[in-house]
Amino acid sequence: MHSSRMDTPNPFAPRGGKAEIEEGRAFAPKFDADGLIPALAMDATTREPLMLAYMNAESLRRTLEIGEAVYWSRSRKEYWHKGATSGHIQRIVEIRTDCDQDALVLLVEQIGAGACHTGRGSCFYRRVVPQTAAESAKLEFADTELTFDPEKVYGKPPVG
Amino acid sequence: MHSSRMDTPNPFAPRGGKAEIEEGRAFAPKFDADGLIPALAMDATTREPLMLAYMNAESLRRTLEIGEAVYWSRSRKEYWHKGATSGHIQRIVEIRTDCDQDALVLLVEQIGAGACHTGRGSCFYRRVVPQTAAESAKLEFADTELTFDPEKVYGKPPVG
Repeated sequence: MHSSRMDTPNPFAPRGGKAEIEEGRAFAPKFDADGLIPALAMDATTREPLMLAYMNAESLRRTLEIGEAVYWSRSRKEYWHKGATSGHIQRIVEIRTDCDQDALVLLVEQIGAGACHTGRGSCFYRRVVPQTAAESAKLEFADTELTFDPEKVYGKPPVG
Repeated sequence: MHSSRMDTPNPFAPRGGKAEIEEGRAFAPKFDADGLIPALAMDATTREPLMLAYMNAESLRRTLEIGEAVYWSRSRKEYWHKGATSGHIQRIVEIRTDCDQDALVLLVEQIGAGACHTGRGSCFYRRVVPQTAAESAKLEFADTELTFDPEKVYGKPPVG
């Protein structure tokens, strides 16, 4: 059994038929083969996308229970109560799910200086410049400003 | 070899060290074990989240080339030029990637009546109501309005 789904059974509704999943009121999130569902956190006020992370059933249940984002860290293989280290908690304003219930959008109030462990407000601080005949695709900074010093906030290594 | 990465080699930069990935200008997207990266499409003007889908390296390359969203359909195992059937094309305004380059946000101009095959403007038309001591978590419609008739646009079965 995969470590991300060991803790507790899935507390959500069983997956029904297509009509029920798409048009129903039962919350039956679909977790992937690793027991995870992607969750994109957006600032509820500015609508800035902040980060994309993953939840397992138990971290989603905890998120709903405490009203703060709790992810599953795939690299550390542990629960990740965002802000537990940095103070940069994400208060849940609303959680949306999509038609087939295999993705989440978290509308959050981002507490503190920012969501990104690099010291920026958002993890999405670079835009992709398309390839041309002469050059491959590259990145351009949309936001270079650090809103906090990651070493002061996280020490090392950065852990959310 | 997985079907989603059969077509062409990855045309993007090789993955470098952490500093290069996080602070560099080389675009080195990280594809998962299935060769996919999640992409959240948002309306560039209203900032409404529209849908979350996946791209493989070739669909990302095509997206950058033509300036319209081309996903990889995990269920149909084929390229999915969004709007090819429905006319509901997503014109790319900007693509952002995150600190570790394993997720994308597409800021798009959604052409036509909507992004969702159910007939709605956005796939994220329901919010999650947290569980209580007495009841499990359930869904509530944030948006019930159909902006188009999916049968007229897609026929059957709906294919994006």
